[in-house]
Amino acid sequence: MSATMKAAMFVEPGRMAVEEVPKARIEADTDAVVRVVRACVCGSDLWYFRGLSDHPHHAQIGHESIGVVEEVGSAVASVKPGDFVVLPFPYSCGACPVCKAGFESVCPHGGYFGASQAEYVRVPEADGTVVVVPGSPEDYDDATLASLLTIADVMSTGYHAAVSAEVKPGDTAVVMGDGAVGLCGVLSAHMLGASRIIAMSRHEDRAAVAREFGATDIVAERDQAAIDKVLEMTGGYGADAVLECVGSKQSFDTAIGLIRRGGVIGRVGLPHDVEISAQGTFYGNIGIKGGPAPVRHYDLESGLLDAVLKHEINPGRVFTGEYDLDHIQDAYEAMDQRKVIKSLIRF
Amino acid sequence: MSATMKAAMFVEPGRMAVEEVPKARIEADTDAVVRVVRACVCGSDLWYFRGLSDHPHHAQIGHESIGVVEEVGSAVASVKPGDFVVLPFPYSCGACPVCKAGFESVCPHGGYFGASQAEYVRVPEADGTVVVVPGSPEDYDDATLASLLTIADVMSTGYHAAVSAEVKPGDTAVVMGDGAVGLCGVLSAHMLGASRIIAMSRHEDRAAVAREFGATDIVAERDQAAIDKVLEMTGGYGADAVLECVGSKQSFDTAIGLIRRGGVIGRVGLPHDVEISAQGTFYGNIGIKGGPAPVRHYDLESGLLDAVLKHEINPGRVFTGEYDLDHIQDAYEAMDQRKVIKSLIRF
Repeated sequence: MSATMKAAMFVEPGRMAVEEVPKARIEADTDAVVRVVRACVCGSDLWYFRGLSDHPHHAQIGHESIGVVEEVGSAVASVKPGDFVVLPFPYSCGACPVCKAGFESVCPHGGYFGASQAEYVRVPEADGTVVVVPGSPEDYDDATLASLLTIADVMSTGYHAAVSAEVKPGDTAVVMGDGAVGLCGVLSAHMLGASRIIAMSRHEDRAAVAREFGATDIVAERDQAAIDKVLEMTGGYGADAVLECVGSKQSFDTAIGLIRRGGVIGRVGLPHDVEISAQGTFYGNIGIKGGPAPVRHYDLESGLLDAVLKHEINPGRVFTGEYDLDHIQDAYEAMDQRKVIKSLIRF
Repeated sequence: MSATMKAAMFVEPGRMAVEEVPKARIEADTDAVVRVVRACVCGSDLWYFRGLSDHPHHAQIGHESIGVVEEVGSAVASVKPGDFVVLPFPYSCGACPVCKAGFESVCPHGGYFGASQAEYVRVPEADGTVVVVPGSPEDYDDATLASLLTIADVMSTGYHAAVSAEVKPGDTAVVMGDGAVGLCGVLSAHMLGASRIIAMSRHEDRAAVAREFGATDIVAERDQAAIDKVLEMTGGYGADAVLECVGSKQSFDTAIGLIRRGGVIGRVGLPHDVEISAQGTFYGNIGIKGGPAPVRHYDLESGLLDAVLKHEINPGRVFTGEYDLDHIQDAYEAMDQRKVIKSLIRF
């Protein structure tokens, strides 16, 4: 009889379950298996939960976790059992030109985790994927563990929005989206030196975190009213940088409308039915950059891990609800109903 | 009787003429009037000449010139009669946030020249527009004057493609388009340190200039064959940077196909019927930047003027035909029929 583990299952839209499934195991000599200490629910999981995007029914789900290495394949050299690691949502070879250019999230030899809301996770390409944290989980308090969990995805994704938008010291930056990614985008724009950060939000709990993360202004308006408001706030010229953390056509059109000519839209929201007018953006010299965040690059090369460990940033604040795995349905429902900003899963 | 001057007239597609028209004059106190010494025909003028884009019939045309200031309005402070100047194809206030961010080409208070193939040109917003050259035209040989003329548009536009594509030392860069802009893109990629520069060309005269400007490889293939070729040359990963100097859907689709994931397409070709798939570019983390080139910024802040004056670069090589204004029809026809790469007009 093979070993089993508890795992969250996406049963169908609106319905999650917890089941015993075969325990994650080494399948290739470059794999590791990690015992999960914290996982969480992503805004992109909600697209499935809400039935807006397809996901196989009765299948595992989740792509954000931190934990302790339990076992490694024979070819794994950089981590060993007992190591505490952050698992970036993409896995990557770490050695090809795409990875070396700092874009591990789109490594052609990699992919994305899809079964991280579980007691154990199989990590392909372990050497090119994991981010090692000094010590063990017991050395850290809950708040730090929560912040470490954000650099598996949401904080690194917000940072990618800010870097892609080319936020510079003194800039006015607008952040579209007040979900956890957008809030981390606010924090990232602050880290990169933006002097004015306009967060688009109409939820007081989220606006409060945005302010805590460095937002100087909150704009509740949408569409043309939001564009008019930001133009009014910027002397008619628009914002130097826009962090697009939603992915809808509505959000993208608003971003185009309120960015300063010559500015760059950093986009990290999964695009849904968005088409970009090549002509419209051309005549404004408007740049568009972004995609899935190269988490590992930002954690290690851009210092997000250090910033968390030194308590310079506290992105774990985006978790406003905590659940154990058995209450996974509650974790999803709370996010779906906007009762919490983001749900953390304790193990 | 008011003064007149000779000017090129766009009569209708396929037909240019030279006529006596009212001489350019000061209309606002921020204007200057410049006596043209050299002008030229742009690839974008050919869109009109070929009847592919609309242009008013029987109207002046042209947006690239260098010359000597003849008269300035009462509010003009930075140039005086007798100054030798390059006239960037955009005019700009030079003082607003868009200009200060280095994007004078999309200054909301500016616009584009449209009557530069003439003996005299009115320069709006003179203080924010002109690029002053030391001495007078008589101090320079023909080759240097030709190179100075390129930093009114074509060289600066090629440079914008390379900067927008974020070309870095050691990069493999692909240049789409072997017109004068594309060739200047090759030279610009070389200036920014690209170690491998692949020029897409199937015309030997253009390929020769590309090689002279720093191209290490010439690819004659198009569409999927071009994509396959570049992927083969880059170990399957694609080029680090693409300079898109055409603007057609065909060229853009090829650019998307051969760029490395995480790379940026720097586009300066006026887009014609191009739609960008937000989703396709997102999952490759492919950036798109560019638009009309901020000529003045590159000439003064990025050192293109200095590089020409020190003979470090010789972009005037793109002019392979010279005409006087009376032969403007020949100048257009020679470019239209690809007998020359770019036509220079002497005065």
